[in-house]
Amino acid sequence: MKLKIAVLPGDGIGPEITKQAVKVLKAVAERFDHDFQFEEAIVGAAAIDATGDPLPPETLELCAGADAVLFGAIGHPKYDNDPNAKVRPEQGLLNLRKGLGLFANIRPVKAYTKLLDHSPLRPERIEGADLVIYRELTGGIYFGEKSTSEDGKSATDVCTYSVEEIERLTHLAFKAAQKRRKRVTLVDKANVLETSRLWRKTVADISSEYTDVSLDFLFVDNAAMQMILDPKQFDVILTENMFGDILSDEASVIGGSIGLLASASVGEKSALFEPIHGSYPQATGKGIANPVASILSAAMLLEHFNLHKEAKAVRDAVEESLHMNVCTQDLNKNNYYSTEKVGDFLEGYIIEAG
Amino acid sequence: MKLKIAVLPGDGIGPEITKQAVKVLKAVAERFDHDFQFEEAIVGAAAIDATGDPLPPETLELCAGADAVLFGAIGHPKYDNDPNAKVRPEQGLLNLRKGLGLFANIRPVKAYTKLLDHSPLRPERIEGADLVIYRELTGGIYFGEKSTSEDGKSATDVCTYSVEEIERLTHLAFKAAQKRRKRVTLVDKANVLETSRLWRKTVADISSEYTDVSLDFLFVDNAAMQMILDPKQFDVILTENMFGDILSDEASVIGGSIGLLASASVGEKSALFEPIHGSYPQATGKGIANPVASILSAAMLLEHFNLHKEAKAVRDAVEESLHMNVCTQDLNKNNYYSTEKVGDFLEGYIIEAG
Ligand SMILES: [Mg+2]
Ligand SMILES: [Mg+2]
Repeated sequence: MKLKIAVLPGDGIGPEITKQAVKVLKAVAERFDHDFQFEEAIVGAAAIDATGDPLPPETLELCAGADAVLFGAIGHPKYDNDPNAKVRPEQGLLNLRKGLGLFANIRPVKAYTKLLDHSPLRPERIEGADLVIYRELTGGIYFGEKSTSEDGKSATDVCTYSVEEIERLTHLAFKAAQKRRKRVTLVDKANVLETSRLWRKTVADISSEYTDVSLDFLFVDNAAMQMILDPKQFDVILTENMFGDILSDEASVIGGSIGLLASASVGEKSALFEPIHGSYPQATGKGIANPVASILSAAMLLEHFNLHKEAKAVRDAVEESLHMNVCTQDLNKNNYYSTEKVGDFLEGYIIEAG
Repeated sequence: MKLKIAVLPGDGIGPEITKQAVKVLKAVAERFDHDFQFEEAIVGAAAIDATGDPLPPETLELCAGADAVLFGAIGHPKYDNDPNAKVRPEQGLLNLRKGLGLFANIRPVKAYTKLLDHSPLRPERIEGADLVIYRELTGGIYFGEKSTSEDGKSATDVCTYSVEEIERLTHLAFKAAQKRRKRVTLVDKANVLETSRLWRKTVADISSEYTDVSLDFLFVDNAAMQMILDPKQFDVILTENMFGDILSDEASVIGGSIGLLASASVGEKSALFEPIHGSYPQATGKGIANPVASILSAAMLLEHFNLHKEAKAVRDAVEESLHMNVCTQDLNKNNYYSTEKVGDFLEGYIIEAG
């Protein structure tokens, strides 16, 4: 397969980890005989420094013309601590999501056997947990009308959803479930919210097109509880924007390491892949950043193009690295490997296993 | 002190557990020489059966005229499973909260040393955790305008808050913090929501009246994470209705037993105290229901009237019962005590310790 991949390393540790992900993708291309072309562009603080714009038009253009975007991380304290800053690095990602029409945020969470002891949860509760959250990314209360009364004494946020917005995400979630354990859980608050009732009706209607996938419903407050009590019960969680924001951050603690968590943001024509962690400026250039979240984001990219064998090869390599303790210092305090060395190990394993 | 307490046992295990709480309150009255008067009324399924109304006018009248309401639990499968049921037991509680003007929901969460092994979280993460959530109960998106477009293709919920609604809850939370570890955390989503910005401004303004209490802010998605990563960091959490709904249910898993979790709902003139668990119909009359959540709700009642020594006596008795393993079967599988026997132990301990 021929793929044109836009690479946006961004700020902080973004460039170091993205470099390892590209290395891994090149190893995959070599082993499985694909043609992956990479083109880099600036975004975030790096782009503000160079052009004044966190998402320069050329960067958006490159991404729009690419098959996929591999994204590093953005954010720099220089801008966070400046209350007069008119543009912020984070706008680069928000504008990019908007410019590419990305409406689905996909967050897998997995408890790796080797890392059970890192989790705040007891091992027996999480061993085998393997879920993915499909979160709507462009609608709901975060993007609704906002207002404050003239006297400043009251404020309002409006939450709206259309059937269309719900449908397009729902199809993605059900298709994902078909390739997994065939179970979708819709998280809503349908006993109280009108938008939730529209979600429930729309998702139930669509579910009849996927007879091999079961559907159940959970109120968001109960879901927040169940996520900790028994995360193994979940396969695909489907939910609206704000509930997905809360639940995906809550779920991120299950695996015990934020350095392993990948994500995808998907639209009709474009898809962007990025670790959930930030730019971690204080670690920049020290060779201590964990590249695995970026590398697992690359695995999601492969999966997105139905390169399942290829994605599996990357995941197998990661499992092996954890098993062999070839890890950065966040996971292996005493005998740790550098960012680069972890990337080298994964690259080597992918090529040799072929 | 003279207190008139309305007792609403409700359905399922409600009567059994409430009976133990009344027994404990009588023991407190005896030891500390108070005059507590109890008057019972029906609510929920029991009230529908008797009168057709889950909150008969006489019940509301009794509660409105009482100093406090001790509430059991409501709900019966007979009504849950009947799609044609026009009135539901749960409406009894909603109408009561409305009728009494209860605007603050207070949910303490504590990790008892003796029960650390029951928690899904690792003991070292939760040992010493002791927090309380102040949740706004009458406003926000749950009670805002709801609408569906004429073609049924989109739905809307409106979230509104007024300064007044925020102020009255905030004062309660800061006063509670003054008697605790003097720290309030406002949970909001002020980077996105206009209502959250009003919360932040209003709470920050009020905090200047409480110079001995520190205030910090946390976005709700991060709070959902921190609640699991490090619940010990929290003292008083202050938040709006829906965030409070989600976070208080999430936090309820920390202690490892829902059978110990009490709550209060407070208004200008009235206050209601109830366990967070439901009516558990399948356990009714078997003598296996854990009365401690109801008894700790009674301790919150005492605290509400500044009877701190008295509340402490109840809590000490509960700690002792856990220590001695005088527990119902949910906490002590092999050698358990009945609902009644646990109540007797606590009653005896309170009187004898005097
Ligand atoms: Mg978030
Ligand atoms: Mg709830």
